[in-house]
Amino acid sequence: MLTRIDHIGIACRDLDATAEFYRATYGFEVFHTEVNEEQGVREAMLMVNETSDGGATFLQLLEPTREDSPVGKWLAKNGEGVHHIAFGTPDVEGDSAEIRSKGVRVLDAEPRHGTMDSRIAFLHPKDCHGVLTELVESAGAARAAAEG
Amino acid sequence: MLTRIDHIGIACRDLDATAEFYRATYGFEVFHTEVNEEQGVREAMLMVNETSDGGATFLQLLEPTREDSPVGKWLAKNGEGVHHIAFGTPDVEGDSAEIRSKGVRVLDAEPRHGTMDSRIAFLHPKDCHGVLTELVESAGAARAAAEG
Repeated sequence: MLTRIDHIGIACRDLDATAEFYRATYGFEVFHTEVNEEQGVREAMLMVNETSDGGATFLQLLEPTREDSPVGKWLAKNGEGVHHIAFGTPDVEGDSAEIRSKGVRVLDAEPRHGTMDSRIAFLHPKDCHGVLTELVESAGAARAAAEG
Repeated sequence: MLTRIDHIGIACRDLDATAEFYRATYGFEVFHTEVNEEQGVREAMLMVNETSDGGATFLQLLEPTREDSPVGKWLAKNGEGVHHIAFGTPDVEGDSAEIRSKGVRVLDAEPRHGTMDSRIAFLHPKDCHGVLTELVESAGAARAAAEG
């Protein structure tokens, strides 16, 4: 069950300059940064608000570390802008299976590693009315489930 | 001061079919629908979660009512997908003035009428790293401010 907007993923050419834009213009501070070598992105998470499921909603700024990465190719085609949206869930495997059973292609056969030790799965944008959509189980949610 | 992600605006060709996709796939129900003749859109708001500022975050599905409307032109160029993001504020006029003073073009000289009797202003996407960005003061926030 999807319980929040976890983040909005925004592709940019210069992570530091874009993070500074969001800080200077709106006051949103960088909460976390990391490099995901597998996906070929450097990213910054900016928290906007907390959510009623005990989580939070972030802006996720994404700068490609190489031109042939998925975000690099996307940027070359589309320019800077919103790349994907992500919903938070306490059970990414269960929701992936349920959504797959409804005929939506889940691009990850098994959840993979995401930002801040989350587990994530992407849905095919052509099955989601053009929106690249991600499911996110945060590390906190995984711990809470494990602890029952 | 921007206190939440108010909504993600998603352009679609068929509002009813897209709302049904979000209901059937994720369980998100339509919270509100309206037609905004000025902007040439028919829209549906789907609530995803409540937020720590007392508001909520929605998906806003947008179907053009005419091809020459802004969303109609955008769809013809880009196809279905994320059209804009919106931040909630208790003071759209104050934030618009502050953001304008930082060199970001505010497209609306005065806030105009938005969904659910909100007051809104759009920022120029070229000044926002490619993201069409909206500021939203909800009718509830306006009432709360008026009541002190």
